[in-house]
Parts: sequence; structure tokens; C-alpha cells
Amino acid sequence: MNKSELGSKTAGLPPGTLVHVGIARDEKVKIKIIDYDETHVEEMEVKTVEECLPFMDKPTITWINIDGIHDLEIIEAIGRYFGIHPLVLEDIVNTSQRPKMEDYADYLFVVLKMVYYDEKEDDIKIEQVSLIFGKNLVISFQEQKGTVFDPISERIRSNKGRIGKLGADYLAYALIDNIVDNYFMVLDRVNDKIEGIEDDLADDPTPETLQSIHKMRKEIIFIRKSIWPLRDVIGGLEKGESNLIQESTRIYLRDVYDHTIQVMDTIETAHDILSEMLDIYLSSLNNRMNEVIKMLTIIATIFIPLTFIAGVYGMNFQNMPELGWRWGYFVILAVMAAIGISMVVYFRRKKWL
Amino acid sequence: MNKSELGSKTAGLPPGTLVHVGIARDEKVKIKIIDYDETHVEEMEVKTVEECLPFMDKPTITWINIDGIHDLEIIEAIGRYFGIHPLVLEDIVNTSQRPKMEDYADYLFVVLKMVYYDEKEDDIKIEQVSLIFGKNLVISFQEQKGTVFDPISERIRSNKGRIGKLGADYLAYALIDNIVDNYFMVLDRVNDKIEGIEDDLADDPTPETLQSIHKMRKEIIFIRKSIWPLRDVIGGLEKGESNLIQESTRIYLRDVYDHTIQVMDTIETAHDILSEMLDIYLSSLNNRMNEVIKMLTIIATIFIPLTFIAGVYGMNFQNMPELGWRWGYFVILAVMAAIGISMVVYFRRKKWL
Amino acid sequence: MNKSELGSKTAGLPPGTLVHVGIARDEKVKIKIIDYDETHVEEMEVKTVEECLPFMDKPTITWINIDGIHDLEIIEAIGRYFGIHPLVLEDIVNTSQRPKMEDYADYLFVVLKMVYYDEKEDDIKIEQVSLIFGKNLVISFQEQKGTVFDPISERIRSNKGRIGKLGADYLAYALIDNIVDNYFMVLDRVNDKIEGIEDDLADDPTPETLQSIHKMRKEIIFIRKSIWPLRDVIGGLEKGESNLIQESTRIYLRDVYDHTIQVMDTIETAHDILSEMLDIYLSSLNNRMNEVIKMLTIIATIFIPLTFIAGVYGMNFQNMPELGWRWGYFVILAVMAAIGISMVVYFRRKKWL
Amino acid sequence: MNKSELGSKTAGLPPGTLVHVGIARDEKVKIKIIDYDETHVEEMEVKTVEECLPFMDKPTITWINIDGIHDLEIIEAIGRYFGIHPLVLEDIVNTSQRPKMEDYADYLFVVLKMVYYDEKEDDIKIEQVSLIFGKNLVISFQEQKGTVFDPISERIRSNKGRIGKLGADYLAYALIDNIVDNYFMVLDRVNDKIEGIEDDLADDPTPETLQSIHKMRKEIIFIRKSIWPLRDVIGGLEKGESNLIQESTRIYLRDVYDHTIQVMDTIETAHDILSEMLDIYLSSLNNRMNEVIKMLTIIATIFIPLTFIAGVYGMNFQNMPELGWRWGYFVILAVMAAIGISMVVYFRRKKWL
Amino acid sequence: MNKSELGSKTAGLPPGTLVHVGIARDEKVKIKIIDYDETHVEEMEVKTVEECLPFMDKPTITWINIDGIHDLEIIEAIGRYFGIHPLVLEDIVNTSQRPKMEDYADYLFVVLKMVYYDEKEDDIKIEQVSLIFGKNLVISFQEQKGTVFDPISERIRSNKGRIGKLGADYLAYALIDNIVDNYFMVLDRVNDKIEGIEDDLADDPTPETLQSIHKMRKEIIFIRKSIWPLRDVIGGLEKGESNLIQESTRIYLRDVYDHTIQVMDTIETAHDILSEMLDIYLSSLNNRMNEVIKMLTIIATIFIPLTFIAGVYGMNFQNMPELGWRWGYFVILAVMAAIGISMVVYFRRKKWL
Repeated sequence: MNKSELGSKTAGLPPGTLVHVGIARDEKVKIKIIDYDETHVEEMEVKTVEECLPFMDKPTITWINIDGIHDLEIIEAIGRYFGIHPLVLEDIVNTSQRPKMEDYADYLFVVLKMVYYDEKEDDIKIEQVSLIFGKNLVISFQEQKGTVFDPISERIRSNKGRIGKLGADYLAYALIDNIVDNYFMVLDRVNDKIEGIEDDLADDPTPETLQSIHKMRKEIIFIRKSIWPLRDVIGGLEKGESNLIQESTRIYLRDVYDHTIQVMDTIETAHDILSEMLDIYLSSLNNRMNEVIKMLTIIATIFIPLTFIAGVYGMNFQNMPELGWRWGYFVILAVMAAIGISMVVYFRRKKWL
Repeated sequence: MNKSELGSKTAGLPPGTLVHVGIARDEKVKIKIIDYDETHVEEMEVKTVEECLPFMDKPTITWINIDGIHDLEIIEAIGRYFGIHPLVLEDIVNTSQRPKMEDYADYLFVVLKMVYYDEKEDDIKIEQVSLIFGKNLVISFQEQKGTVFDPISERIRSNKGRIGKLGADYLAYALIDNIVDNYFMVLDRVNDKIEGIEDDLADDPTPETLQSIHKMRKEIIFIRKSIWPLRDVIGGLEKGESNLIQESTRIYLRDVYDHTIQVMDTIETAHDILSEMLDIYLSSLNNRMNEVIKMLTIIATIFIPLTFIAGVYGMNFQNMPELGWRWGYFVILAVMAAIGISMVVYFRRKKWL
Repeated sequence: MNKSELGSKTAGLPPGTLVHVGIARDEKVKIKIIDYDETHVEEMEVKTVEECLPFMDKPTITWINIDGIHDLEIIEAIGRYFGIHPLVLEDIVNTSQRPKMEDYADYLFVVLKMVYYDEKEDDIKIEQVSLIFGKNLVISFQEQKGTVFDPISERIRSNKGRIGKLGADYLAYALIDNIVDNYFMVLDRVNDKIEGIEDDLADDPTPETLQSIHKMRKEIIFIRKSIWPLRDVIGGLEKGESNLIQESTRIYLRDVYDHTIQVMDTIETAHDILSEMLDIYLSSLNNRMNEVIKMLTIIATIFIPLTFIAGVYGMNFQNMPELGWRWGYFVILAVMAAIGISMVVYFRRKKWL
Repeated sequence: MNKSELGSKTAGLPPGTLVHVGIARDEKVKIKIIDYDETHVEEMEVKTVEECLPFMDKPTITWINIDGIHDLEIIEAIGRYFGIHPLVLEDIVNTSQRPKMEDYADYLFVVLKMVYYDEKEDDIKIEQVSLIFGKNLVISFQEQKGTVFDPISERIRSNKGRIGKLGADYLAYALIDNIVDNYFMVLDRVNDKIEGIEDDLADDPTPETLQSIHKMRKEIIFIRKSIWPLRDVIGGLEKGESNLIQESTRIYLRDVYDHTIQVMDTIETAHDILSEMLDIYLSSLNNRMNEVIKMLTIIATIFIPLTFIAGVYGMNFQNMPELGWRWGYFVILAVMAAIGISMVVYFRRKKWL
Repeated sequence: MNKSELGSKTAGLPPGTLVHVGIARDEKVKIKIIDYDETHVEEMEVKTVEECLPFMDKPTITWINIDGIHDLEIIEAIGRYFGIHPLVLEDIVNTSQRPKMEDYADYLFVVLKMVYYDEKEDDIKIEQVSLIFGKNLVISFQEQKGTVFDPISERIRSNKGRIGKLGADYLAYALIDNIVDNYFMVLDRVNDKIEGIEDDLADDPTPETLQSIHKMRKEIIFIRKSIWPLRDVIGGLEKGESNLIQESTRIYLRDVYDHTIQVMDTIETAHDILSEMLDIYLSSLNNRMNEVIKMLTIIATIFIPLTFIAGVYGMNFQNMPELGWRWGYFVILAVMAAIGISMVVYFRRKKWL
């Protein structure tokens, strides 16, 4: 989970001041352009924002993908050349944003959270993705170089499916769809883990099982926080009045919207299941502890009266007639055995044993 | 419960790509056609989708039921011949759908979850059923061959009730009604089980009782997940603006809607009752454990001081005057008895015994 | 509580098929007619529905009360003679209905749940009451012969109050009002019981107290289930557009509506109080158990070291100088006393005693 | 808390029948009239409702305050002389009303709950106050003689503030405002008590602390029940369409509305704090109990093995070589000390001690 | 946290009476004026409200900041000279206000809660800030001299950013934005503390850890109480109909609105995390306690039967044949060892050890 969730760095600054809030990174920011229409695709990596401008005059669709948001000069240049509102730029570089959608007439601005599973750290990561899209233009911002948009580039390159024929809004939809699909992949991992914990719970619950449950619950709190506002964002795009989104695209947005609801459903179910598992863990722990204590206490209880009897005949009084009896010792042993057995029988009958 | 709840298989693919998500099956997909109007009924099983087409030209109502959604060619053929949107086809073959209703002007698309009780595995199963219905046509998709729609075929065959006289929308209603009725049957089983657990709870609660409660709670989480969206689906059909649904059918849809609410009510009540039972179990367990510990601790407590006294007179000091007394032993025995009895009396008075 | 809450009996049957769902009864169904206007009252018991028809032609208000819904022929006859929709008839004989109100233009159909306290079984019972009312006609259905509507008959007979002057809608209101008033009577019993439990809780909480709390909570779950939808039903009547309900009656419906909210309030408060009491019970139990364990453990702890000392001087070593000392025994006794007393003092200071 | 919360007394009676529901009282009902305009104030106590009528013809504002609602004749007389709807009269004498506001065109009817702190019984009391106000007339009903409206009479008498210049609606507002202010006073007491409990909790939590928490929680349940509907009542007055309320008064009503929300906020916060305190109490109790058990169990555990060793050398076998050794006793004492000390060290290291 | 949350001081007083509710302060109230437009800035501190009046006639923007609200004469003077409604003045001096926004046509009145972290007392403080703003005028009220508005004064002085060019509404926005930014700073502290507690929890949970969790939870209850209404306040400004707020400012208000939601999200997440941590603490405590009890009980259980055996051979019967055997002692020692070892093995196998 990101540590610096909050934007305290920006407190007191005038609005629209660019301050990068997020994990500090050194990598060089990469700018990649894919320019395409139904018949051709042009793809290149550029160094400066200026190099993107020539594509603007053409009637083709231009997708500018920026991997890295810590180079504020590039962000400012984008603001300048494409006429983006300063508040939008401020939001792009502040990774503590909540998913949202804003309609600036000429363009739509969308902030999303992308989740993915970091195999190396065995942890779920959340990253911010921002999209600006207008007529024939989509600009996407990622926190670092990632592979999440590769299937889309691939589809454009191979001109597979509708993507070549439809506009910038469809491209934006495709990117959002991809991000939501990522949630499914993460939730598959989550569900696998939950099933693993469930097996542990059935076999042999240990304190580690408990820790896993708590860890999953915490991760779900964070995923939930990132997905809840997403519903409104996509619903806003689908039902919004912006004429940047064509009717034919809205039907696809409704589909992503359904997926978002499905993600939320799955998360809620996972949360409920985890709560249920926590209850099961605690009661199984309780049961086991009770079993231990009961068993041991019973042993102690049987022997304590017997030890008392032995103690009595260990006393050194001069006048203890039983001690002189011929079979005294054996009688007492028999008495002890009788007491012990009858206590066991009593406990059995009481279902304590 | 289905394991592969999520659609991660489809991540990154262009929308409208058909990927079967669900339990892999080998059975051959079965296509059954029932073509009927008020006066006649024609019923047949066909191999290919093409064989259905002649029925389309007739003014009769045609019901095509497809058992099995894992043969993607058949699904694609249906899309081709009947002009179904690719997103619909994608949803049909993806069994991780959430119940929903979509109005595509020419036809309505409905996804539902059917629950049934699997006697063999003694478990509740959830299966996806999709319906497409337009003018004079209903296409239904089930995951596998099932008997849930048999009463409807039977009613058509015998031309009993209104079904022969009314349109395709009434047939679609009848199918949905049947699916909702299945919930009642499953909930009857659930209630029977809950009553069984309740009896166990009153007689002799064991850890198995606890497990049953937790299992029921988990099953209810899944049933609830499948029924909640159903309400909106049916409400949407009833109040929707589609002119594929006649006024006379809406009154029946309102009836199913009421049933759905009733199912939800019953589920919520079952959930509340189970939570209550969990509380009862835990407190009865607690009571019993307390009883054991109290009883045993009391025994221990009575004998510990007595054993101490015996220990004192078991010491080997040369000068212990009591040891030489003629009635010393008996006096001490009497003292011990007195202490024991007075402790019992004390515990009784304190209501600890 | 009714056992057969669900309508699985009707699964698969065509809608409108009459199936009695509820407790099987043998009693003969009773049909009672009260026909009245401002000046006269006519009252009779009839055997068949046909006998009711003559009253229909008169401008007087006719109230047909049917005690028992298990004779399907009578219900069907009513449907036939009064032109009632089959779905309504189906709902009347299915006692697992949720309270609801439906406007069929010519008549309004209302399903309610009546609660009453069964003195013999010391339990709260819930019964279904259905009302059909149109112009000058009210038909009421009860599950069995009951006394709940007696005050209304009495009022009509004595022509007391407004009832004689106002229409069928006022009569329907009066019946509903009576049913809601019954909730108050049951809740008074519930409150009395809660106060009884509260007293037990203050005096001497036993496991029975706990059972009573749980039982009350379960009963409240069921009452709540029956009253929640009632609010919408009555609100629907009050605010509905049906011209079967006169303006002057709406003011009375608003009054019942207020009562319903009051019932719900009282139920919620009772539920909160019971949860509070459960907490109190559990913590008082906990306190008492803690007290027992603490007291007993302390006794054990004091004597265990003393017993050890006694054990030491019970050893049979030949060279144990203390044993030969003249005052050895008494010194050791003193040492033991000192240890015991100082432990008591220590525990006191630590507030463990 | 009032015991007879419910209106079962009235069950079965025709609506509008006056039945006093509430604590039975003997005091004589007092009727006080204050008649005033901007320049003069007339104040008197009367015996019968008839004596109020002369004031009605004057253009001055007349405030009739009735202390006591158990004299049904007076209530009926008011209904008769001022043309009040029977349902209103029924509600006035039934103290189990829920706060509500009803617009009867000629007059507005408001039921409120007044809370106050009864110093003698050290308990929070809830009383019903009803207001009827029309043009130039306000009638207020209290359950018994109280001082809650004294500041208002005082303000009228001294003609301080706006009260003399504005209409009956402003007077009604002033009365309501006073009642809401009372909530603040009670909540101040509640907060004081909570702080007191908080101090106890920090110093030395006892079972009495727990009882206080539970008692406060129960009181808050009742206050909450009385304040929640108040919000809708005052919101309804402020936003309502009645022309009995002038624009200039609405701004004041908005102010009371804000106060009501503030009261609710404070109650919710108090409730949250109490829940938090309950958690703290339980965990501190748990901590202390754990400490006791741990300490005592450790003592027992150390001495049990030592006692066993002493027991071994207390055995009477003829051939026990250690017994004859010269330093055997001292060696064994040393071994015992070593075992005891190493156990203490072990427990220390494990942080059990 | 402020103690005197409630306004009981004002109970019974006529509305609009000024009563200072809050912490009593002695400091002299400071009045600071900043008058500016695009080209110049004038800043001065004044003694009386009259000195502010000359600035009113100029077309520049005038910001009057008042540090301290306990001097009622100043507040009254402001009301008199600027025509502020008495209820507004009453609210300004009553620090128990709930955040709210009121539109008085000529001016808007906004009450906010400012949170800040008091380093000295290591505690979160909440202070009330009120804003009145109209055409070219902003009056801000703080409880005491603070530094929260310094960045704004600084920005005006340096004429940096938009602040010089835009109107009084933008200044009001900037002040509100600053206050919301303060929440982020406090939440950063809160998050730091939560992470600290999380580390403690992982390393070595102590009762102090528990106390910290409870303290954080209580603080979050209070912050939540102050931020929840803020959302409606800012939403009301953004979407309100007042023409005092220009279109260009609304876009900035939307930005603050987003921040408020983000604050609420963060608070909810912090609350969830703390609940999770409480669960973790309690279960880790439970685990540790169980471990202690189990270990110790096992030791006791092993030695109790052995001590019993030693007791048997410590009895003084004259005829105990084993005592005379040559290897009797060693046989018994071996038997004891065997019993002890087999018990350990048994416990191991049962996973109790």
C-alpha cells in the first residue's frame, strides 16, 4: 500500500501548483505516441512534448502515453500545449487522488486507480492512472513503466476488433476496461489466497492463519477504497452529457460499469467470507483451548483428592489404628482406585470427558 | 459454490470476444425448439442453429432452449442468425455475470442466477441462466441439461393456463417465475436445515453444530449475492419502457417481483436467525465450560487446604506434641471434615455450587 | 411462528393456481355478512358465496368476513362472482405472503399480518389477513375464526361513531386500524416480558434469563418482518391515487400510518434494549465467573507454597538438623503463618482480593 | 423512562375516542392565559375553557397553556370551542405519541418530546408537549406543571426581544426552541456523567462503572428515540407550505433545525464514546484478570515440581541411598532452589512474568 | 477535545442573544485588515471595527480577520456596521456550532471546524472558524491567534497566483481550501501514529498499545464529526444559487469538495484499520495468554499424578511390601519417569505442547 496517501505536501500552496505526491522515482519519464486510423498505425517514442504536436493537425487518433509523472516539466508542457486546466495538472501529479471524472467541455479528465499483484513483494499494489481525452486525442499517465496497456497497443497494431474504426472515446473506454479487468485478476489472486486460508482453517488453524486473514482484510479495505468511487466515475461517463462520447461507445461503457459492480460484489463477498472465517478461527481456537483446559483440569481434579488421602496416611500420629491393620494398605489402594474410577464415570456421564 | 467466480480469463481481450468462463464440461450441447400458438404445439431437438430458422418466419411463438454454453460455435451462430450484440454473447458464455437486464430495442437480454439443491453433494448450487426475448421468440441458455424448465414445456404441451394464448413476453415471464420459484424450494431446504440445527442447539450443541451454522451462513452469503440484483432486474422489466412487454404481462411481473422481495426477506430473516443461533451456541458453550471449570476448581480448592494439614502432620520433627496425643489423629480428621464441610456450605451460599 | 413460511408447494405451477399454503385446518369455513347503512344493520351467517350476491344490488355497504382460507372452492367462487383476478386469489390462500397493497382499479387488495398473543402456548402468533374492498363492498379473509374484528362488528351494530355514515373505505380503514392496534397489545406483552427479564437480570441472572433474551430477540425478528412492509402498504393507501378512497378517510389512514411508525419505533427500541441486556447478562456472568475463579485460585495459591514447606520437613533424610531442634516445629508453623498472611496482604494490596 | 409506552388501552376503540395514556395523576389541571401584543400583556389563570373565549375576538396573540392532560373534559371542551379534529385530541391525551407535525389548514398541530433531568430521582425524564397554533392563538399542553416555558412567559412579560412584535408562529417557534434547548441541558448532564465514568475508567474500573455505562447507553437509546423524529417535525415546519408561518419566522425555524441536528450529532457522538468506553472497560477487566491468573498460575507451577521432589524423599522405602548421605538434605534443598530460580528466569525471558 | 461542546449556557435566552460559548480566553482580540486589488496591497492592524469602514467604499477587496471571538462588543459592532443578522452573530460566538452554510442574499455565512495538531499537548485540537463574505468583503473569525491563514496573506502580499485578480469569493475559497488542507496535515500525523502503533503491534503488543488504539479511535470520532457536515457546506457553496460566487470560482470549490471527500475516505479507512488493529491486538493477547495457561497447566498436570505416587509411598502403613523390596525405590522412580515421559508424548501428539 502506498504510504504517502495524503497531500499534506501541498497544504498552503495556491491551487494549481504542481507538486509530485507519491513514491519518489529516478527513472526517466517515457513518452510514447501511437497515431492510427482505420488503415494505418504509426508508433514512436519521443523525448519532448513538442514532438507530439505535429500529430495534432492530422485527422487520425493520437494516443500519448506517459510513463512517469515525477518530471513536472513534461506535465507543465502538456498543460501548455494542449490547454489543460492547472487543477487537472495538479491532480495528475498527486497520486493521492480519489478516482473521479471531470468534464472540461473540450476534454474529459478521468483519474483511476489500477491494482496489480506484485509477485516479488507478494503484495497488492495500487497505482494511479490519469486519462485526458478529447476529440481524436487520448493522453494517459501512469506512475511508472507498466505493461497494463500493452494489450491495447497490440490490438491497435494488429488493427483487430473495432478499435481502429472507432474514435478516441472508444480508445479511452478500452484503457478503462483494461484497468477494470486488472481488478478481476487481482481478485482471482485474492480468492485463491482466501481458499488457501480456508483449507488451513479446516486442517490446522495456527496463529499464522489468523495473520493471513487480517492481512487479507486490510488489503480488501484498500482495494475497496479504490473501487467504490470508480463506479460513479464510469457511471458518470456513461450517463454524462459530454458529446465527446458517442452513443455507440456508451453501450461499452455500460458493460464496464457492470464489471465494476461485479468487482464490488466480489469484494463485498470476499469481505463477508473473511469475517466468517475469522469467526470460525476464533471459535475453533476456543474449542481447542477448552478441550486442553478441560482434559487437564479433570486429571488434576481426580488426583487431588487421592493425594489428600495419601497425605492423611503419611501423617506421623502415634495412634493411627489403620496403619497397624494387616490389609490397611491394600484397602486404601482399593478405596483410592474406587474414588478415581467413580470420578471418571461421573465426568463421563456429565459429558465433561 | 462455483470456484471461478471471476472473469480474469478475459482480461486484456477486446470486448465481445467469446470466452467460456465457468466449469469445463464435455457434454454435447443440446438445442431444443418448442414452437406453439393457441391451437398447436411443435417440439423437436435439432443439431445446428440453422435448423431453427424456418420457425422464424411463422407467426407462432418459438422457444429455443440451449442446454450448455461451452460450445462457442453455437453461440456465435445464434449471434449471427438472430442479430445479437457481441457483448450479449460474451455475457452469455461468461458464467460469472451478475444478474442484469438490458434493453436492445429489438430484444431484451436477461441474465439470472438459478439456485438448486444438489442432493448428491448435499450442497446448494448456483447456475447462470440467460434469456433473450423479442417478438415471438425466446432463447434460453442454461449451463447444463436441467429440469428447471420442464414444468413450462409441460404446460405448453398440454396448453394449460394462459401460456398458449399470450405472447413471447409471457413465456419469458413464466421462465423467470420458475427460476424464482426455485429459490423458494432451496430456501425451504435451508429453513429445514436451520430448524435441524436449532434442535441440535437445544438438545446438545457440539462443534459440528457450530460448523453447520457457519456453513449455512456462507451459503446464505452466496444466495444473497445472486438474489439482490434480481430485484432490480425484474423491477426493470416490469417498469421498463420496452414495448416488447405487454400491459397484461406486467401484472404477472409485479407478482414475480413480490416473490423476489419475499425471497430476500426470507434470506435476511434466515441470516438474522443464524446470527442469533451463533450467539446462543457460543453462550451455551460458555455456560457449559464455566460449569466444568467451576465444579472442578471447587473440588481442588476444598482439598488443597486439607492436603496442607495432612502435610503438616507428616513432617518429621522430633518435638511435635500433637503426634503423641491419644486422640490427635481423630481430632485432626474431625477438623479436616469440619473445614471441608464449611467450605462447601460457603460455596453454596455464594451460589458458586 | 409459522413453520411453512415459504411457498415451495406452488413451484412450477402456472400463476393463478390456487394452492393453500399454511397450517392445515379442519374447521368448517364460516362466511359472515354484515350489511349496513346509516340507519339499519343486517347480519347473517351463510353457507355459500351465492347467498351473498343479493346484497350486492343494494346501495348499502356489505362486509363479507370469511374465517378460514383452506376451502379453495369458496375462494374460487368469490373470484368468480366478484370478478377478482386469479393472482389475488392465489395470494389470499398462500399465507406466506408479504404484506402488500395492489390497486386493481375496481377494487383494492391488501394483505396484512395480524399478530396476537396466544395465552395457551405463551407465544406470539402471526396470521395473515387479506382485504378486498371496492365500492360498497369489503371482503375480509382470516386464517381461522378469530375475535380481532369483533369490536368493529360491535360498532356497526350499535351504529356508534362515524362507521355507519362513511363508506366501504372507512370500514376497510377500521379493520386495518384494528390490526395495527393488535400490534400495540402484543408489544405491551413484549415490553412486560422485557421488564420481567430486566428484573431477573438485576436480581440473579441465570442461563434461563439468557434463553428468555434470545427468545424475545427471535420473536422480535419475526414481528419486525411482518411490520416493516406494513408501512409501505398503509402509506400506499394514504398517498395512492385510487378514487375508492375518499379524502376524509385519508386523514384516518395517516393516523394508522403514524401508529405503524410508532410500532416500528417501539420494536427497534425493544431490540436495542434486548441487545443491551444481552451485553449486561454476558458481562455480569463474566464478572461472577471471574470472582469465583479469582477467589478459588487465590486459596490454592496460598496453600501450595505452604504445602511445599510441609513436604520438605516430611522428607526422610537422616541428617536434617531442623528436625532435632526443640522449637523447630513451632518455628516452621510460625513461618508458614507468616507466609500465608503476607500473601493475603499482598493480594489485598493488589486489589485481587 | 415512562413505562406505559404503548397505547394498548385504546385498541379496538373507534378513532377519536379520548383515552388518557400515561402516568396517572391527581393534580388539578391548570389553565393559564397570556394575551399580549406589542404594547400590553394580560396574564391570568382560569378554571374553565369557556373563560378563554373572550380573548379570541381580540386581535392580540393569545397563548393558552394547559398543565395536565388527564382531565378529558377540558380537552374535549377545547376541541369543541376551537374546532380541533378529534384525532388531534386523541393524540394530545396519549403520551405515547411519536413527535409529529400535522397541518390542518386552520391550525398546525405539533407533538414534541421534552427531556429534562429529574434531580431527585437522578434520572432523565421524557414528557410529551403538544402545541396547536393558528392565527393569533397558541395552545400548549404539558403532562404536568413544569417550568420549561417560564423563560418565554418572562420574555413576554418584560416585552424583551422580538417576541412582542411578531405573531403566534413566532411564539410557537419560541416554545419549540425552548424545548430543544432543554435537550442541550440534558446532554450537558449526560456529557458530565460520561466524563465522570471516563475518569473512573482511567483510575479504577469496577463493576459499577460498567453498570453506569450500560445505564447511560439505555438512556441514550430513549433520548435518541425522542429526538430523531423531531428533525422531520421542525424541517416540516420550516419547509412546509402552511401560510400560518411567516417568512421571517422560517429563518428562526432553520436555526432550531440546526440545533436539532446538533443534538443528534452530540447524541451519536456520546453513543460512540460510550461504546468505545465499554470496549475499554472490558479490555481493562480482561487485562487485570489475565494478570491475576498469570501471577497465581506461575506461583503454583513453580511449587508443584518442588513439592513433587519433597514427596519423593518423603517416601518410606527402606533402600533409598540418598537419605543416608551426609549432605543429602542440603543438596536437595539446593537442587530445589536451582529449579525454582531457573523457572523464574525462564518465565521472565518468555515475558510471562 | 473541547469540553463545553454544548450550548446549554444559552438555553432559555431569546434567539440572537450573544453568549460566548467556548474556552474562556484573556488575550486581546486582534483585528487585521488586508485591502488589495490586482496592483496594490494595504495591510494594517486596527483597534476598533469603525476603522474598517473607510475601506468599504473602495472597489478593492477587503479582508478583515478577527482573532478571538470572546469580545462581544466587537462582534456586535460588526453586526451593526455590516448589517449582519443577529442569529449569525450568535452562531459566530458559539463555538459548539456544527459546520454549516447559510445564504443571506447580501452575504454568505460559513461555519467551519479547523483541526490542527497541538505539538505541546500531543493532541488534536478542533477550533471554529467563521466566514462572512459578500461583494468585495470577507470577514473571518478565529477562536484565537493562529497561523493557519498566513500562507494566504503571504500570497496576497506577493501577489502570487490568481488571488489578486479574482474576487472576494476566490479569497473565501482560498481560506476554506487552507482549512481543508489542514485536515490532510492532521491526518498525516494520524497515519504516522497508526503506523507506529502497527509496528508496536507486530513487535510486542502491550496494554499501552491498546490504549493508543482506543485514543486514536476517539480522536477519529471527533474529527469525523467535524468533517462530515463540511461536505454539505462546500457542496452547498459549489452548487448553490448565490450570485456572490462566480462561475470561475465554482471549479475551485469543486476541487475543495473533492478534497473533503478524500479526507472523509481517509478517515473511514483509518477507522477501519484501527478496528482491524484492535481485533489483531485482542487476538494476539488471547494467543499469548492461551500459551501461558497451556504451558503452565501442562506442567501442573504432569506432576500431579507423580506427586500422588510419591504420596502413596510416603504413607506409614506397617504392611507395605514394596517398601521392603531391594530395588523398590528405583523401580518407582522409573515408573514415575515413564508416566511423565508418556504424558509429554501424548500432549505432543495432541498438539497441546
